[in-house]
Amino acid sequence: MTSKQVRPLAGAVRTSKGAVRPLSGARITGGLLHDWQRRNRRATIPHTIEQLRAAGNVANLSRLLEDAPAPYRGRYPFLDTDLYKTLEGLAYELGDGDTSAREFFDEVVGLLERVQAGDGYLNSFFQDPAAAKKPWEDLTWGHELYNLGHLIQAAVAANRRMGDDRLLRVATRFADLAVERFAERGICGHPEVEMALVELFRETGERRYLTLAAAFVDRRGTGQMEHSIFPGEYFQDHVPLRELPSVTGHAVRMAYLAAGAADVFLETGDRSLFEALERLWDDMVATKLYVTGGLGSRHSDEAIGDRYELPSERAYSETCAAIGVMQWAWRMFLAGGDAKYLDVFERVLYNAYAVGLSADGTAFFYDNPLQRRPDHAQRSGAEAGGEALRRAWFTCPCCPPNIVRWMAQLADYVAAERDGAVLIAAYTPATIRTAELELAMETAYPWDGDVRIVVERAPDGPYGLVLRVPGWAGNVTVTVNGEPCQAPRSGGWITLHRAWSPGDEVRLTLPMPVRAHGSHPHLDATRGALSLARGPLVYCVEQHDSPQAPVDDLLVGAHDVVNAHTERRDAAVVLRLEADAAPPPAAELYPELPLHEALPETRVAATFVPYFLWGNRGPQAMRVWVRTPWTNGKKAS
Amino acid sequence: MTSKQVRPLAGAVRTSKGAVRPLSGARITGGLLHDWQRRNRRATIPHTIEQLRAAGNVANLSRLLEDAPAPYRGRYPFLDTDLYKTLEGLAYELGDGDTSAREFFDEVVGLLERVQAGDGYLNSFFQDPAAAKKPWEDLTWGHELYNLGHLIQAAVAANRRMGDDRLLRVATRFADLAVERFAERGICGHPEVEMALVELFRETGERRYLTLAAAFVDRRGTGQMEHSIFPGEYFQDHVPLRELPSVTGHAVRMAYLAAGAADVFLETGDRSLFEALERLWDDMVATKLYVTGGLGSRHSDEAIGDRYELPSERAYSETCAAIGVMQWAWRMFLAGGDAKYLDVFERVLYNAYAVGLSADGTAFFYDNPLQRRPDHAQRSGAEAGGEALRRAWFTCPCCPPNIVRWMAQLADYVAAERDGAVLIAAYTPATIRTAELELAMETAYPWDGDVRIVVERAPDGPYGLVLRVPGWAGNVTVTVNGEPCQAPRSGGWITLHRAWSPGDEVRLTLPMPVRAHGSHPHLDATRGALSLARGPLVYCVEQHDSPQAPVDDLLVGAHDVVNAHTERRDAAVVLRLEADAAPPPAAELYPELPLHEALPETRVAATFVPYFLWGNRGPQAMRVWVRTPWTNGKKAS
Repeated sequence: MTSKQVRPLAGAVRTSKGAVRPLSGARITGGLLHDWQRRNRRATIPHTIEQLRAAGNVANLSRLLEDAPAPYRGRYPFLDTDLYKTLEGLAYELGDGDTSAREFFDEVVGLLERVQAGDGYLNSFFQDPAAAKKPWEDLTWGHELYNLGHLIQAAVAANRRMGDDRLLRVATRFADLAVERFAERGICGHPEVEMALVELFRETGERRYLTLAAAFVDRRGTGQMEHSIFPGEYFQDHVPLRELPSVTGHAVRMAYLAAGAADVFLETGDRSLFEALERLWDDMVATKLYVTGGLGSRHSDEAIGDRYELPSERAYSETCAAIGVMQWAWRMFLAGGDAKYLDVFERVLYNAYAVGLSADGTAFFYDNPLQRRPDHAQRSGAEAGGEALRRAWFTCPCCPPNIVRWMAQLADYVAAERDGAVLIAAYTPATIRTAELELAMETAYPWDGDVRIVVERAPDGPYGLVLRVPGWAGNVTVTVNGEPCQAPRSGGWITLHRAWSPGDEVRLTLPMPVRAHGSHPHLDATRGALSLARGPLVYCVEQHDSPQAPVDDLLVGAHDVVNAHTERRDAAVVLRLEADAAPPPAAELYPELPLHEALPETRVAATFVPYFLWGNRGPQAMRVWVRTPWTNGKKAS
Repeated sequence: MTSKQVRPLAGAVRTSKGAVRPLSGARITGGLLHDWQRRNRRATIPHTIEQLRAAGNVANLSRLLEDAPAPYRGRYPFLDTDLYKTLEGLAYELGDGDTSAREFFDEVVGLLERVQAGDGYLNSFFQDPAAAKKPWEDLTWGHELYNLGHLIQAAVAANRRMGDDRLLRVATRFADLAVERFAERGICGHPEVEMALVELFRETGERRYLTLAAAFVDRRGTGQMEHSIFPGEYFQDHVPLRELPSVTGHAVRMAYLAAGAADVFLETGDRSLFEALERLWDDMVATKLYVTGGLGSRHSDEAIGDRYELPSERAYSETCAAIGVMQWAWRMFLAGGDAKYLDVFERVLYNAYAVGLSADGTAFFYDNPLQRRPDHAQRSGAEAGGEALRRAWFTCPCCPPNIVRWMAQLADYVAAERDGAVLIAAYTPATIRTAELELAMETAYPWDGDVRIVVERAPDGPYGLVLRVPGWAGNVTVTVNGEPCQAPRSGGWITLHRAWSPGDEVRLTLPMPVRAHGSHPHLDATRGALSLARGPLVYCVEQHDSPQAPVDDLLVGAHDVVNAHTERRDAAVVLRLEADAAPPPAAELYPELPLHEALPETRVAATFVPYFLWGNRGPQAMRVWVRTPWTNGKKAS
C-alpha cells in the first residue's frame, strides 16, 4: 500500500463556485447521530459484510480470477456497487481508526485491483466470459457507469479519509476509459457517475472528469438512449434537464441526476443548470415530497408521481431516494448557502432516511410507507420492494450499503464554511475544527431544542458563527455568555459576527412544541387528516400504542395536539395525547349521502412515536396521517 | 366445414347446480347496449383485426408452416389469446348473420387446425423450434393453459352460435392433452382454463374436463408452483382458495380463478367452494371495489390492494379485470339467484368496463384511473399500463380483444330462467325468447328508469316474470296493463306470478334522482369527497366542463347534488349543477395547523358526464371524487 500524505482534515473537499464550502473537520461526539454511527459500526456493517459474502458479491469478483469462473450470482449487473458503497462507508470508519473491517476492505480492494481489465474496465457481471452481453452493449440497463460512479465515490473516500490511494488508482483507470469512450456521445441509464466524476475532478485536479460529468448531464434528454418499453421519463431522458418541468421518473435516478448536476454547477458555474435545479427543487418540495421528506409515490417503476399524488399506504419513498435527496439538498446548500435546503435535508435525515433501518441496525426497508393497514400482508409485491416490515437483505440490495456509507459520513454534513465564517448546518453533539476555529457543540437534539456551543479555539479578529434556524422553529433565543443576543434572523440563519475568545459559550434555544400539519387541498390522500411533528421529527401512531381504538378510527383535533405532552420512552421522546374515537363505521363502502353519522362519544389515549422508530415491534397497523374532524373546509378548532 | 345442427337458441348452456340458468334467447334490439354492439361490429372488430395482423399475431401462426419460421413477434407467450378472444366475439357476430369478418375467422381457424401439433398442443410461442423454452417447461409464466382456456371459449362460442365445430375439435384435442398431462399435478400461473374447461364439459358432456377444472382449482395454493421473485399471492397460490381471506394478488388472475371456481360449483355442487366464494365476494364488494366497480388498486403487479386501499389517481382497475368481475358476478348469480351480484355486474358494465373503450371504439384503456391530475404526463409507467388516455393498441393487448368478445355476447346477460320463471337481469331494448315465453322490452335505460315489457307469447298457466330492482333504486312502481301491482320487493326482485296473455304490458319505473355517495371512513383516498351517480352510471367532471374553476377546487355539497338537473348531451344524460369554488390554495404542502382558510366565495357551474365517456376530448384533468365540505365528521348538509 502506498501512502499519500494523510490530510488531517480529509473529508469533503473545496468546491469552486458555491457560496459555501464543505467542512471536513467535524466529528460527531454524542447523541442520536453518534448512536446511529456506533450502531452502524457494531451491527450494520458486520451484518452487511456477512450478507455480501453470503449473497456472492465478493465471489462475483474472485471467481473471475479462476480459469473457468463460476456463474455470476444475483439478478442485476450492478451488484459490485453494494461492495463499493460498503467500502465507502468503511473508508470513513477505517479513517477514524476503527479497524474492525480492515480485512474485508483490503480483501475487496485487492480483488478489484486484480479483476480490473487491462483497459481499466471493471464490472464483474460483464467481465464474465459467459455474460450474455458484452461491456457497453446495454447502456440503458447495464449500469456500468453507475458502477463506475460508486467506485469513484469509494475511492475518493478512501483517499481522503485513509490516505489510501489504491482504489483511486483503480477508479481513475476506469474513469479514463470512460472519458475516452464517452467523449462524444452516450449516457448511462442510471445517473450516479456525474456526482462521482465531479468528486474525482476535485480529488485529482484533472479537468477531463468534470468535462465528462457536464457532458453526461447535457446529453440527457437529447435522444441518445434506447428506452425499450419504458418511457423516457423513467430515465429523465425525455427532455433535457434544463427543460424538465418537474422532478419525474424513477426517483433514485432523478435525485442522483440532480445532485450530479448541482455538483457540475459547483465547479463550472453554469447558472442555467443551477436555475433549473432551483426550479425543480422548489416544485418538488411544494408538490412531490412526503411529509417525511420521502421522494417517490409509485411502486410501479419506483417513480415520482404527479403533483400532490402522495398516497400514504403506497408511498414508495425508497431509502436510496432519501439519500439522493439529501445529496442534492447538500449540494444546493453549498451552491447558494440557503438554509431552506437544510430544512429538507434534516427532514429526510430524521424521517424518510432514518426509518429505513431497524432499531437494531440489521434489517432494512426498501420502500417506506407512511401507513400500514391492519390487513396488510407481510409481503405484497415483488421481492425487491413492497415489503411491509424490514428485511435482512434484498435481491436488489442497493439500500443497505447506501445506509452504511451515509451513516458513516454524517459528520460531513454538520457544518460548512465560507471565508470568515462557520455555518452550523446540523445540531448534534460534535466538535468542529477548521484552520481558524474549534467549537464544541452539546445538545440533546432532535429530542430537545437547546444547543450549547463552546468556542475552544478562535482566530484573531472577528469571525462569523452562523446558526441555522430550522423552518419549523418559532421564536428562538440566542445568548452569548449568558447575554441575550439581538442578531437578526435572516433567511433561516442567525449570524453572530464578533471576536471570539476560548470559553465563549453560545446558547441557542429552539422551542419544540408539538405541531400538527395539514396538507394541501389537492393532496387527496391526506385530506381530512393531520400529521404530528416535534422539532424535525415526524410522529406516527402504531396500533400497540392505541389500545382503546383502532388507529384508523382515531380522530385527532388540533386542540388535542395542543394538549399533547411529551414523555421519554427509552432514548426517545414520545407524544401522549387524547383523541376522539370514531364509532365503528357502518360497513357500506360507498354509502349514499347524506349520512347520519353518529358523533364520536369516546375519548381515548394514544401515544405517538417517532416515525423512524415504527415497525420494530412486529406487524401492526400504523398511521402518520390520522383522521381529524373538519368544519366547512376548515379544520375544527 | 362440417356442420352441426344449428341450435336456434344457441348461447349459454344449461348449468346443473345453480338456482337459475342462463338464457340464450335474448337479443338486444336498441339503446345504448345496441349502439355498443354496433360500434363493436363496425369499428372495434375491424380495428382489432387490423392491429392483430400488423402486430404479427396471425403471422406467429402462419410462419410455423414454413420450413424456417421467422421469429415470434411480440413480447409475451400468450399472444395467441388475442386471436382466440377475437374469434370468440366473431362467433357471436357471425352466428347473428354479420359476415364482415368471415374471412379473418376462416383464415385463423384454418391456421390453428394446421399449426396444432400432433399431440394436440397449440401455442405459437412454444411451438417455435427456436423458442428458448419447450412446451410445459414454465408453467408459472408460460400461460399455456391460459391459452387453452381462451381457445376453448372461442371454440364453444363457435359451436353454439355458428354450429361450426372446427375450433371445438382443435380445442378438445388440446384439452385432452391437458387432461392426460395434468391428471396428477400442475397448475397454470394464470387462471382462465378452469372456466373454459367447465364450458367444454357443458358443451361435450365429457366429465373429464370438469374433473380437471376442479383439480386445477383445488391444487392452487398447495405448493405446486414455482413463484420466482413474485410472492405467492400474486398467483393466488399462497393458500388454497377456500382458505383465502380476501381477494388478493394479480386482479385478473383472481377474477378468472373465482369465476372458474364458481363454474366448478355450478356443475359439482361443492358448497365449500361456493361458500368461500360468497365470503370473498362480499368482502371484495365491501372493501376492495372502486365505486365504478373496478378491481385492482395497484399498478405494481397489477394487483388488488389492502382493504380500503382505493386511490383514485392510481386506480389500476384493468379492463380485463372488469370483465373478470362480471364473469364471476354472473356465475354467482346463476348459483344463487341473488340480485346483489347483478348490481355489481351492472355497475361494472356501465362504468369500469365501458370506460375501457373510446367513444369511436378504436382506442382502449388498459388501466382505468378515477382521476387525472392536471399535470399528468401522457405516458407514465411501462407501456403496458399507466396510460393517461386511450391507445390504439398495446404491447400486452389482452384488453382490446376482451372488449371485442364481451361486447358481442352482452345478450347472454340480459335474462335468466328457472322452472316456471324468467328473470330480467338487465334493462335494455331487447327481445327475450324461451321455449315458453317471448317478451319485448323497451326502455331508455340507463338514461331513464322507465321499462316497458310486452308479452308477445305466453305459456298456458301461471308463469313468473321476475324483475330486478337495482340496489340504487328507491321506491319503484310496477303496473300490469295499467294497474298498479302490489307484488312485494324481495331481495332485489319483484316477482309477477300470473297467467299471461299476448299483449300484456308490464311497466316498471325506477326513479333516477341524482345521487351523491361518500366513502367508508377507512378509505383514505376519498375522504372529504363525494361521487355522483344516477341510475347505474357513475359520473365525473372533466376540466372542459368546469370552465370557471379547476376541477380540483370544486366543492360540491350534498345540497348541490340535490339541486342538480339532468340534460341531454348527444346521446347521453349529463348533470348540471352549481358548486362552491375553493379559493386558490396557499402553496405550502404541509401547512402547520390551525389554518385560517378563507371560505369559498364563488359559486360556479359545472357539468358532470358519465364516467365511461370521459377522456374522449383530449388530455385534461378529471375527477370522479370531488371535494365536499365537511362538518365535524359529517358532511355539511
